[in-house]
Amino acid sequence: MEVEIKFRISDPEKIERILRDRAEFVIEKIEHDYYFNHPCRDFRETDEALRIRRDVEGITLTYKGRKIDLETKTREEFKVRLDDSETARKILEKLGFRKAGEVVKKRKIYRDGDVVICLDHLEGVGSFVELEIESDDVEDAKRRIFKYAEMLGLGGEKSIRKSYLEMVLDVADSN
Amino acid sequence: MEVEIKFRISDPEKIERILRDRAEFVIEKIEHDYYFNHPCRDFRETDEALRIRRDVEGITLTYKGRKIDLETKTREEFKVRLDDSETARKILEKLGFRKAGEVVKKRKIYRDGDVVICLDHLEGVGSFVELEIESDDVEDAKRRIFKYAEMLGLGGEKSIRKSYLEMVLDVADSN
Repeated sequence: MEVEIKFRISDPEKIERILRDRAEFVIEKIEHDYYFNHPCRDFRETDEALRIRRDVEGITLTYKGRKIDLETKTREEFKVRLDDSETARKILEKLGFRKAGEVVKKRKIYRDGDVVICLDHLEGVGSFVELEIESDDVEDAKRRIFKYAEMLGLGGEKSIRKSYLEMVLDVADSN
Repeated sequence: MEVEIKFRISDPEKIERILRDRAEFVIEKIEHDYYFNHPCRDFRETDEALRIRRDVEGITLTYKGRKIDLETKTREEFKVRLDDSETARKILEKLGFRKAGEVVKKRKIYRDGDVVICLDHLEGVGSFVELEIESDDVEDAKRRIFKYAEMLGLGGEKSIRKSYLEMVLDVADSN
């Protein structure tokens, strides 16, 4: 299980100063995400996601199950590496999958033990921090991840369950 | 386009003697193929195929469109390489794809110019030769591939449009 929380942040620098002190910097990259909808069910209703991601580390196909928790974005996740994003997209289109939308973001990743911290920036949408632990003990991971958020000064904030795709589509709708 | 014909053969040795003289030996391997059916259409009716293949060269996901020709197995084909067949299967199952069947075969591949020749053996089903040219000039490729079959002594034989999956399922049904 991917136990994950997300917060909108106004001061990424402040959070990064804390991270530089105690976490390990992993990578900074641009992620190009292409999302699909299913040929015969609506992922907006089933709360699933299917995505091809391209970044400097390679190409991945990821399936995410529906969120199983009201406070977090905890869900099943399966991921494989691919050699060719264009052909993978073609295969999915031939199978009837349709484009749901695209998300491009700048992401800095830090790691602190088993907590992965992503500082994200999406042009025209804003800055966010995502905290993630991969674990089958969801309750324990939730406890620890909210504690970590508090340490980053995000204790008073409300975590966001909306996906980047939904945010990007909202912005597009309002323009 | 993948322009392909297939023949059942009783004497693989005879064909291989001709190939050894004029074609280049590429590889001998065991191919493990796992076929899926679509969540909301029946590939037996639409004549499509979706397959994960594992062999010594790696793992591939392949989509094949319906056959567009009555004499050959010519069809669109898209292929990507993957790093993990179990996870890829899991993703497809989560998306509603169901197992259609499995095919295991021993395959020897020869190449002669742009003609790829596969000598296949399927336990309990038989021996076959598949001739294939990748080309967008389907008519030219068909002419050349049937000429190649003649040169291998298969001129009098009728080419088979049935897939190995269908043959394996037929054998299973009759047992």
